[in-house]
Amino acid sequence: MTSEAKFIEALRKLLLHPAARGLEDDCAVLPIGGETLVITHDMMAEGTHFPDGADMADVAWKLVAVNLSDLAAKGAEPIGVLLGHMLGEGDERFLEGLGEVLRAYNVPLLGGDTIRGAGRSEGARAFGLTAIGRATHVPVPDRRGAEPGDAVYVTGTLGRAMLGFEQGRGAGAYGEAYSRPRPLLAEGRALAPHVSAMMDVSDGLLVDAWRLGEASAVTLALDSAHFPVADPARREDCVRWGDDYELLFTAPADTALPVEATRIGTVATGGTSALLVDGKPMTLQDGLGYRH
Amino acid sequence: MTSEAKFIEALRKLLLHPAARGLEDDCAVLPIGGETLVITHDMMAEGTHFPDGADMADVAWKLVAVNLSDLAAKGAEPIGVLLGHMLGEGDERFLEGLGEVLRAYNVPLLGGDTIRGAGRSEGARAFGLTAIGRATHVPVPDRRGAEPGDAVYVTGTLGRAMLGFEQGRGAGAYGEAYSRPRPLLAEGRALAPHVSAMMDVSDGLLVDAWRLGEASAVTLALDSAHFPVADPARREDCVRWGDDYELLFTAPADTALPVEATRIGTVATGGTSALLVDGKPMTLQDGLGYRH
Repeated sequence: MTSEAKFIEALRKLLLHPAARGLEDDCAVLPIGGETLVITHDMMAEGTHFPDGADMADVAWKLVAVNLSDLAAKGAEPIGVLLGHMLGEGDERFLEGLGEVLRAYNVPLLGGDTIRGAGRSEGARAFGLTAIGRATHVPVPDRRGAEPGDAVYVTGTLGRAMLGFEQGRGAGAYGEAYSRPRPLLAEGRALAPHVSAMMDVSDGLLVDAWRLGEASAVTLALDSAHFPVADPARREDCVRWGDDYELLFTAPADTALPVEATRIGTVATGGTSALLVDGKPMTLQDGLGYRH
Repeated sequence: MTSEAKFIEALRKLLLHPAARGLEDDCAVLPIGGETLVITHDMMAEGTHFPDGADMADVAWKLVAVNLSDLAAKGAEPIGVLLGHMLGEGDERFLEGLGEVLRAYNVPLLGGDTIRGAGRSEGARAFGLTAIGRATHVPVPDRRGAEPGDAVYVTGTLGRAMLGFEQGRGAGAYGEAYSRPRPLLAEGRALAPHVSAMMDVSDGLLVDAWRLGEASAVTLALDSAHFPVADPARREDCVRWGDDYELLFTAPADTALPVEATRIGTVATGGTSALLVDGKPMTLQDGLGYRH
């Protein structure tokens, strides 16, 4: 078994479409017939992305929401989704959650595939979703566009999903933050014309900031005192836990932003590390977040 | 756990895009900016679609080929694919087979997702592939277009995959027919302007003919003596086994076909069954083929 990083490195040596953006961005960006399509595919597996016994309505919601979040980070308006579904326990709840998320974001189903699993009760299930959107602004924001001198911003508050997970669904102020993430589609569309780079924060602020810096061949110099966290006593956890689906972006420092966001740092020229926190170089070995 | 048919019936009640063709066709057909996209997503799971211990290069080939076959049945030219990959044993072979099939059909990778599985060695793996193509002829052939009086045709020879599976890879005349199916992209494009309905034969001629008849609300009256089979002694198996990825289509009886195909019957008005074989009504309960 190869690691994810090695596997993706090997994929990069295959026949890549220019729209694939070198497999370095969240989505493919495909000009077609005068429009620009934005396309993403994410999978979720039992045991890795959701526990055995999870409410399958939440799993369906999240499967759609995380893909729409990728579209949000590119300023795209969803056209529709294709579902890859493995039949199993809780399918009725899955259908309920799927109906809810499609209605909530007015995103129709385009197609997909329904399969039987291996017929072993121990066999973990996996689901896939392909989301297709239409770019509302060209050029479509890229992870690779951050420029030295740009300001670094993040929307919202980090650590909400972590607290929601710990509190349990419906139990506290953040009860649904983990189980029912909200893709920031309107915010992404508003920001797209103004940003130099943008991505969603799925795996934790630090690891995703590192990735953005790496993809742009710059250094993101962040100031931890400015991190907008849900629990200041657990600042370190809040910026590493992930699953918040806020938008991380860079923009020229004098840009008037159309969306509320917190400035957390500045882009510097590329150096030994893609990420500095309070002046200290950080690497993936520092446990920046959830790596999957 | 619901059945596949019930699950798809429930999906039809959700928010459907007009491009979804009521989830009755092989692909979504999406007009966008002056072009028409054809989009399909198929999954393959260990234990259901390939055995534990299969050569993962063949699995990767088949995953791409079966999706390209769906595009072929719509006369579409592939643009690219997105891969949903669950890491595990044989990834190096998977990458080799993936590279081979992408090169063979000159289809580039657009993106996708790579995930870790559940970390249990017993956990079955699943893969998903989304193929995106461009229609070469509009209207795009539909399963729902067969008209009474049309002739029914199938390309090639049925049962080759079955014989290839039984002989083992590389062992006989049909050694690669099962492990490395060939999507009929050129044939599908040539046929698209001439057909009234078209689909690929993935699950067996009889079950797929039943589906085409059902989707078109007609009866396909087939003559078994004309079925083009690889082994006449096993005619019944050859038309039920599936995995041949030939094209099944209907066209006005006087159409000059641009591609070699065998006429196997005639479309009649819809009656009690979507399929007659030698005048005998057939239903799904008759074990028409592989149902998944």
